[in-house]
Amino acid sequence: MVFWKRLFSNSETLTSSPNKVEGELLELTDDSLGQSRIVFSTERDIDLYELEELCDAVGWARRPLRKVKKALEFSFLVVTMWEVKGNRQRLVGFARATSDHAFNATIWDVVVHPTFQKKGLGKALMKYTIKKLRSDDISNITLFADPQVVDFYRQLGFVLDPEGIKGMFWYPR
Amino acid sequence: MVFWKRLFSNSETLTSSPNKVEGELLELTDDSLGQSRIVFSTERDIDLYELEELCDAVGWARRPLRKVKKALEFSFLVVTMWEVKGNRQRLVGFARATSDHAFNATIWDVVVHPTFQKKGLGKALMKYTIKKLRSDDISNITLFADPQVVDFYRQLGFVLDPEGIKGMFWYPR
Repeated sequence: MVFWKRLFSNSETLTSSPNKVEGELLELTDDSLGQSRIVFSTERDIDLYELEELCDAVGWARRPLRKVKKALEFSFLVVTMWEVKGNRQRLVGFARATSDHAFNATIWDVVVHPTFQKKGLGKALMKYTIKKLRSDDISNITLFADPQVVDFYRQLGFVLDPEGIKGMFWYPR
Repeated sequence: MVFWKRLFSNSETLTSSPNKVEGELLELTDDSLGQSRIVFSTERDIDLYELEELCDAVGWARRPLRKVKKALEFSFLVVTMWEVKGNRQRLVGFARATSDHAFNATIWDVVVHPTFQKKGLGKALMKYTIKKLRSDDISNITLFADPQVVDFYRQLGFVLDPEGIKGMFWYPR
């Protein structure tokens, strides 16, 4: 049973917290996890090895950390989701977006740690990401969805091929 | 009849030209246009009114110039295509890409002036754009194609929904 105590109703910053993470607070009580605080942040100074560990956990192919560092630096938005228990914090979710800072944003690399899946946290992560992009006046939010997550994104308000617009990827030949 | 005298075989810069545009030179002889030089450039200091005029010519909805300026500034790549005749130059094509500077790029706002369409210039513009992105070590080049240009992009090596990956757009609800 998951109970959302507070979902984006205000943006309390964890300044008095002993933790490094600053961001929006979301309290989550879940039978399987005990009492956890889930914190969303847009602070992009992330331990790259911790991020790699998160991506390993969902089976993504490893990428050179040098390039990951550059991608984080040049993404328009980086969102991280943390489990905070007492003094401990753990990276449990991630998403980022590229953008022209004016019209378009494209969301990449959405990941939630397997232990934290099926609790509504992926949805909360995406809602937070969309909220941040909208607050920056980005009107066109796009992504490329793997087949198994098309319905997940559809539930969040993403539309497949609107007006016949098709996602395309270039391959060398 | 279109004859490509030189297509990206070298990157001659028009430094001795009286024109402002610096870029790669492509000479084009076309019966309907007379002798024209077509120049591709990545110089992003563009007259916004000239760009607006080009977008008007293909019937795009007008966008606030303040936002267009910001989008050009924060695009990873801006490609312009110019017709150069003697001392005169005219903006006849445009494309831009957002990127994380590491893995992904997404191409937006590809436009060729109607007078210059059906001459292979759209293809040349896209090839130049792809070449530039590849030279910056971007491996994942993507775009969202309107239905009527899907075949155009397919001919350039773009693949529709590879492995079932779907383009999605978020709409407020």
